[in-house]
Amino acid sequence: MHHFARGSARSSAAGIVDVARFEQFETGDPWPFGAMWYTVPPGESPPADQHPEREMSIVLSGVASVEASGEITDVAAGSAFLLDSGEAHVIHNRSEGEPLVVFSAYWMPTSHEDGQ
Amino acid sequence: MHHFARGSARSSAAGIVDVARFEQFETGDPWPFGAMWYTVPPGESPPADQHPEREMSIVLSGVASVEASGEITDVAAGSAFLLDSGEAHVIHNRSEGEPLVVFSAYWMPTSHEDGQ
Repeated sequence: MHHFARGSARSSAAGIVDVARFEQFETGDPWPFGAMWYTVPPGESPPADQHPEREMSIVLSGVASVEASGEITDVAAGSAFLLDSGEAHVIHNRSEGEPLVVFSAYWMPTSHEDGQ
Repeated sequence: MHHFARGSARSSAAGIVDVARFEQFETGDPWPFGAMWYTVPPGESPPADQHPEREMSIVLSGVASVEASGEITDVAAGSAFLLDSGEAHVIHNRSEGEPLVVFSAYWMPTSHEDGQ
């Protein structure tokens, strides 16, 4: 059993977002997805992001206000959301006091592996 | 963007554990892992589980007391743990009042896909 304690994970700043990638952990056989925790400070909106990987996220604490495809959807702690390949998104933290902490898994969809 | 609200997800009982699998959501292209939320009631210890899939879990609320390979490790909310292929495990909830809620992603390791 491997224990990945979030409090002691190595992280780095990506603009205003603190990112801790699971690549730092030695776990043998590669995983079929990348994984990270990220934290958005209260009241902050990082720049829009867009990438070919699909991204499945779980809100660990706070509320993620997910702006994508012209809508903003509030995702509560414990709930999840999926961004499709190439879907531009902004993850707002509209709380005045609570950090937003998210776990994300991301992977290249099959159609991209085929070069389509 | 797909929103998977845990509160309205369809779940079913597996013994004392409540399990909500992500297969219920329509998201197009298949994912490279299975995913579920599960809930262990306060003070409960489900039977030992063992399976060929590797399983990466994030504690969403409560504390998971993960028994595996002869040790018990407490994993706090926000932190994660990985169980290796074939590693027997019991996920205890030793809290007297708080449910334990976990998100898990699971996949067959490459060596098993090869039939090794």
